[in-house]
Formats: sequence, C-alpha cells, structure tokens
Amino acid sequence: MIDKVKVFAQENNLIENNDKILVALSGGPDSVCLLHMLHSLKDELNLTIGAAHINHMLRGEEATGDELYVEKLCKNLSIPCYIARIDIDSISKKTSMSHEMVGRDERYKFFEAISNKHKYNKVAIAHNANDQAETVIMRMMRGTGLEGLVGIRAKRGGNIIRPILSLSREEIETYCSEKKLEPRIDKTNLENIYSRNKVRLDILPYMKENFNEDIIQTLNRMAGILQKDDEYINKQCNKAFKEYCELELESLLINKELFKLDDAIVTRVIKKSFIDYSGKYINFEMKHIYDVIDLAKKGTNKKIDLPNDIIAENIYGNIYLKYKKKKEENHQNNEIFIAKEGLSNNNLRFMNYIVNIEIINNKKNMEFSNNDLIKYFDYDKIRKGIIIRTRKDGDKIRPLGMTGNKKLKDIFINNKVPKEERDIIPIICFDNNISWIVGHKVSEDYKVTQKIEKIIKIKLVRKE
Amino acid sequence: MIDKVKVFAQENNLIENNDKILVALSGGPDSVCLLHMLHSLKDELNLTIGAAHINHMLRGEEATGDELYVEKLCKNLSIPCYIARIDIDSISKKTSMSHEMVGRDERYKFFEAISNKHKYNKVAIAHNANDQAETVIMRMMRGTGLEGLVGIRAKRGGNIIRPILSLSREEIETYCSEKKLEPRIDKTNLENIYSRNKVRLDILPYMKENFNEDIIQTLNRMAGILQKDDEYINKQCNKAFKEYCELELESLLINKELFKLDDAIVTRVIKKSFIDYSGKYINFEMKHIYDVIDLAKKGTNKKIDLPNDIIAENIYGNIYLKYKKKKEENHQNNEIFIAKEGLSNNNLRFMNYIVNIEIINNKKNMEFSNNDLIKYFDYDKIRKGIIIRTRKDGDKIRPLGMTGNKKLKDIFINNKVPKEERDIIPIICFDNNISWIVGHKVSEDYKVTQKIEKIIKIKLVRKE
Repeated sequence: MIDKVKVFAQENNLIENNDKILVALSGGPDSVCLLHMLHSLKDELNLTIGAAHINHMLRGEEATGDELYVEKLCKNLSIPCYIARIDIDSISKKTSMSHEMVGRDERYKFFEAISNKHKYNKVAIAHNANDQAETVIMRMMRGTGLEGLVGIRAKRGGNIIRPILSLSREEIETYCSEKKLEPRIDKTNLENIYSRNKVRLDILPYMKENFNEDIIQTLNRMAGILQKDDEYINKQCNKAFKEYCELELESLLINKELFKLDDAIVTRVIKKSFIDYSGKYINFEMKHIYDVIDLAKKGTNKKIDLPNDIIAENIYGNIYLKYKKKKEENHQNNEIFIAKEGLSNNNLRFMNYIVNIEIINNKKNMEFSNNDLIKYFDYDKIRKGIIIRTRKDGDKIRPLGMTGNKKLKDIFINNKVPKEERDIIPIICFDNNISWIVGHKVSEDYKVTQKIEKIIKIKLVRKE
Repeated sequence: MIDKVKVFAQENNLIENNDKILVALSGGPDSVCLLHMLHSLKDELNLTIGAAHINHMLRGEEATGDELYVEKLCKNLSIPCYIARIDIDSISKKTSMSHEMVGRDERYKFFEAISNKHKYNKVAIAHNANDQAETVIMRMMRGTGLEGLVGIRAKRGGNIIRPILSLSREEIETYCSEKKLEPRIDKTNLENIYSRNKVRLDILPYMKENFNEDIIQTLNRMAGILQKDDEYINKQCNKAFKEYCELELESLLINKELFKLDDAIVTRVIKKSFIDYSGKYINFEMKHIYDVIDLAKKGTNKKIDLPNDIIAENIYGNIYLKYKKKKEENHQNNEIFIAKEGLSNNNLRFMNYIVNIEIINNKKNMEFSNNDLIKYFDYDKIRKGIIIRTRKDGDKIRPLGMTGNKKLKDIFINNKVPKEERDIIPIICFDNNISWIVGHKVSEDYKVTQKIEKIIKIKLVRKE
C-alpha cells in the first residue's frame, strides 16, 4: 500500500527529498494512516514530519480524547505535535459564519502559522479516494462542467498536498489495523455531512453492488483524466485571453477575433473577462456568457445588461465590458475584492489606475523592479484574497523592517501628504491586513524572503 | 414545448428549410411526439416528412398492434409510412448476434434503404433528455473520460438528428396527452434494458428526491458543455497528429517533440496512433498509452510490447510503432478492418501499399484526381467499416455502369492478369461488399453522385 502512495506522490510531484511536511492530524483513520505512512518514508526521503491538531471544542470529552490520542501517537513516533484549542462555536456566533466555514478558516490559519514558525514547506491533508468519488458525484448532481468533475486535486497552490488521495477508505482501515494504530472514530461535526452521507451510504454502495465493484477507483481514474483535460483547456484559455482581451482604463475589450475560436475557449475567456473586470464571478451564469456571444453577432452600439452593474457593448463587433455610469462617482467608496482563486495574472481598474497582478511560481532568475509602483509580496500568505481600496479610519500597517504597527494617519502626517490627497491613495490589503500603501510603505508581514515559494507582483499604472 | 424544440434544433443545426426527414417511428410516446412536432413545423420550414416503422416480429399481437397504430397515425397526418417486417429472432440465431445488435443493424439498414429510395436527407431519432441523463450516468459508472461523458450527440454523421433530445420524458407524455395522440406503450425488448432500468427507476429518482429536483436537465446541460470541450480537444489532437506523426511503410513514427505537449493531447495522439496504425483500438488500454510515454523518456533502442502484435521502439527519442516480425509473412492472409468511427483521415499499411483514407464533408470546389490509385466513394453507404484484403473465392463486384454482378475471376481473365499477380491486388470492401478492385474496377453501388453528402477518398501509394 505504501508503494501505491509513493507512485501516486511521484506522478503528482507531491513530495521531494528534504521536504518538511506538516500533517493535518484529526486522529481519525485517514490522517493517522497518512502520518504513519509519511513517517515510514521519512528516512528514505529525508523528510521532516510534524503534526498539527485542532481541538474545535465542540464535542467535550470526545474532543479531549482525540487530543490525548494524537499527542500519544506523535510521542510514540517521535514527531512534534502542535495543538490548538479553538472555540469554533463562539467565533461562529460572532461572525455569523457556519461551523464548517469557521473550522476551515481556522484550520488553515493554524497550519500556516505553524508552518511559518517551524519552517514546514508543505501541509499534508488526508483526503482519500472515497472522498474524491463522493465529491465528483455531488458536484455532478449539483450541476457542473469539466472544472467541477475533476474533483479534489492532489496538489493545490504548491504547498497543500494530498498523498493518500489514491487509497480507498477500506485500504486505509486495513493499514491502520495492520499497524495497530487504533485511530479515533471520525466525527465530522464540522462538515456539512448530511448530503455527503447520502452519497456515501446510499448512492455509491448501490452503484458498487449493481454496476461496478470497483466504482471508487473508476471515479478516481475519471477525475484524474479529466484533470489533465481541464489543465490543458485552461492553459489555452489563458493564452487566448492574453491575445484577445485588454484591460483599458474604463473597460475591458474583447476583440471580435476571439469569437471565431472554438466554443470551449470562447466561453471560458468570457468568464475570465467577467472575473478579471469585476473581480468576482458571483451572480454570473452561463446564460450571461451566451448573451455576450450573441451580442457579438449583433450590430454596433447594441448593449446588454450584465450582473454586478456591468454592461457589455458591441462596437464594430468588438465587445467592451463597462461599469454602468452611476449618478455620482464616489471614489472614496471604491473597494475591489479579488478572491485568491481569481488572482492569477489579471488587470483591474481602480480609480485612475490599472492594477496588474501577476503570480510568479518560479523566482529563479526573476528580476525585481525598483519602481515605486511595483511591489512584490509573499503570495502564500494570502488566504481569501486581495482588497484594493482607499483609507479608512483606524487603518494600521506594520512597515517593512519594523516590529510594531503604525497608524496610517501618522504615516501621512510624517510624509506631509496633504489631506485632500490622502483619499485617493490606493491601499492594497491581503485579506483584512494592509500590505501596501501605494507610494509610501509596504508591510513587513508579507515581505519576500529566500524561503518563500510563490511571489505576487503588483504593479500600478497611472492613467490620467 | 415546440418552441423549445425549435431553439434546440437551431442551436445544434439539426433542421434546415426544405429538409426531407424520415422519422424512426416505433409507436411509443417519444417517436410519436417527435413525428407530431415535426409535422406541425412542416409548413413553416417547408419540410417533407416520412415515417419508417419496423415490426421486429418478436412480440406477436402487440407488435401487430403497434404496426396498425403507426399506420393509422400517419394516415391521419397524411404522412407516408414505410413498414418493414423483419424476423430479428431468426437473424439473431443465424448470426449469433444479440437481438439488440441485430435490431440496431436492421433498423439503420432499413432507414438507409428508404432514405435512398425516397430521397430523404435526414433520419430523425426520438431520444429524449432522460435517455441522455441515463446514458451519462451509465457511462460514468462503467468508467469513461470526457469522450463518454458527452453522452448522446444531437447530430451524428451529418444526417442522423435527435430533435427532442432536450425534452424530458414527462414533457413528452404531457405533449402526447394534450394532443390526444395515445401512443403505444414503449416495450423495449430489443434493448439491454436491465441496467438502464436501474438507473431510470432507482438512481435518478433518488438523486431527484434527495439532491436536485432538476437532475435530468442538470445532467443534460453538463453533457452539452462537455461536448464543446470534447470537440475542441479532439480538433487540437488531430492537428498535433498531423504535425508529429507519420505513417511510413513498415511503421508509424511519433516525433519526440510530441511528448513536450500537454498530457491531454499526448495521450489522445498516442491513442489515435494505435488506431491508425493497427486499424482498431480493441485490446488497448490507458496503461499502454502511459507505457509509450514512459518509453519516450528512456534511451534509444528500448522496446515494449503492445497489444495486437505491435511493438513500440524508442529510436533517439522518437517512437516507432511496428508490427512484430512474424516467421513468414503471408500476404495472402492479410486483412485489415477499419471501423467506421476510425475512418477519418488515416493512413494504413497494407502489403506494399500505404492506404490513405480521407473523409470529405464539403465536396464544393473539390478536385477529383484521375490517378488509377485514387478513387472516391459515397461515404454514407458504409455501415460498419472498411475491409482491405486480397481476393477470395467467390468474390463478385457490380462494376460501375453495369446492372449485374461480375465474378472477380472473370474480370481477371478478361484483363489478362497473370495468376501470380492476382493474389497481390488489394481489394477494398465496404462492409462485406467489394467497392474497388485496385487498378481494375470500382463498384456501381458506391459511386459518387450529385446528391451524396460525404465523400470517402481512398488513395494508395505503392512502396517498393
């Protein structure tokens, strides 16, 4: 079984020699198996292994039992174990977010903090082949295209890895019992488990019994093959976007030549245009994509309304996405949010600037510019996304090289920025923290160091 | 509802003005609805409608009842009705083929014969949205990739159309009852209905009740979107094949540059290479494709065995597919079969010839060559595929311009072909009928006329 995991890790470039891997350890069979397997590959691959456990404080004694179990397991294997107790319920009440969402957020926050402090370069998560099959079926039932049918990816963002994604739940249980690991029973109070259980306990067993004994692996193979197709089409879509779309000061231009390409590319490029222009895909549907395709066939000056206050206009066959004119443009209230998934290589309009964002995976040989309007940050520290806005009361930043926070107000006073100019200075935030006061300060918290993997380059171009 | 069908037909280019459409009419709700709808669009689109019904003689009185019903329905609508009685059971026994396969073959044979005789240019089949959803689920359970998840296509081979593929079974029943059509109950004795019924009666209702009220349309939308992705990737695959693969006398060369492309393309081009070189994909699996990819990474002169007596060899990074050397090459027994699905634009080795096959969809502006080794035939008359072989006892052909058959033996005698040469003349058969005795005669049965839609061009190149 360990060989199967090694082959899977190799095929998906999950693990390299000398990796320092932090394992997300709940104490259930999946994560216990994962920890034990990585531990047994430790010497061969010269790995450093750690474990991170979160006690969500939702299940009283049971949770305490889980915590004691993982502590003991790690001690037996001589693996450092980092434990956090987080009161999910009270955060959930304060933020009006579901236990599931808060749990997810807090988990990743904790993994990141531990990784940074103890220099782990990867976080290993224990999804298995059954999770994958269930995810594919659930997405199919809710409605999806290729991008959803690919399921869970073996690797995400360069540092999240899922080494046992190819093992079935059964194989994992066999492994745990052979190695006498006696894992805790997985309680999934944090997950929206109701629907998933129907897939797990009704749909998949029915398919297995009546159609295909090997249904779990069959669905995993399908997801794997579709991942390759999805990667390929996305690559071609990004090429076409670069060739045919251009972000201008007030609009995004889609060149009419785009519409001569294949539907698979045209629909994806239009979707990307929506996201890049407005910073989000929420409220958009396939219907709107087809509306734009139809518009391109109509005459010049024809317009259609799109969600999020955007209109599309046909001008001599080219399509322009624009914001609807508002009665009074209020720059002070401008605020753009771009979710992390939408960050790669896009251009945004913010006030009188075009903001160009680029994610750089390979920092070897890259040249850093000295321009005041171009800055570089640690991409992997962004959790949800970027906000571009103007100043707000109470804004603070930890300037580069400093240990404490400074108020923006004080920075502006020190730098003698006239009051009327303060409201038109773009502020770049990662999640809710300021990373860059454009033209003035960058934050210590997101600086680029030797050890970071991915860089986000942000460039502003002033348009008068 | 009829508007929905019109939009669907438009989006998929199913129906054009002045089309002459033959409807496959079983007498069940789907085909009765289809016939009635096309009939009501008749004047608007200037259509000519006919119906073809096959009495499979398997269900005694019921089958007779169906026959009487369709006759009466067509009479009421003033639609010509062509009926065939075919003893499926006795053909099935004679040929050892299943009722399902024989039924399918005989149906298409009958549709083709009626279409030719009465000049119908399209055949309409009554698959519905439920059939589509069931097909997608069944294929997913059996194991598939993108090419299977696309389900049933709205149009196949230019002349098979499925205009009500977007209607659910429910909508069709509503239509039939509103129009008081009183269709016969669909008995599907000919289909392997056992598995499909489990999807129809268990899986889909469960998904509908527990997950998505609109599951049928959701799966149909998914299939539609994936069809576009599949078309796009296949197009790119064919381009790459042309650029990087070359059929030589004894081998098929895959240039090492291919392996630098994306996996989605590389795997498909290798699959196409297997099919084009050996004329079939049977016995090949994904595993063999990955074996070839691995081989390309290894050193020169490394070889691997593949199914169907093929080996792959790495020569300076390029891959050559070759047939294993047999003790004694026996030209007399050479026989290649290429299934119709595999016919498009491929090169085959047959004895000392390379046979190049090209399907031409648009015959406007095409130039016909006068070369003795290049001939053109009616593509749509091919049912299962092409056989390339040498002569056999009893071979006959109906030579171009003649009404009766002639024995090959007599043709060879008339043309004074020496006996020792007769065994090395390639014979091209469409299904089991000879279409071309290379260098001597072509058949009247497959000649190219004004009215045919697709042309198959066959070119032989002699390699000494």
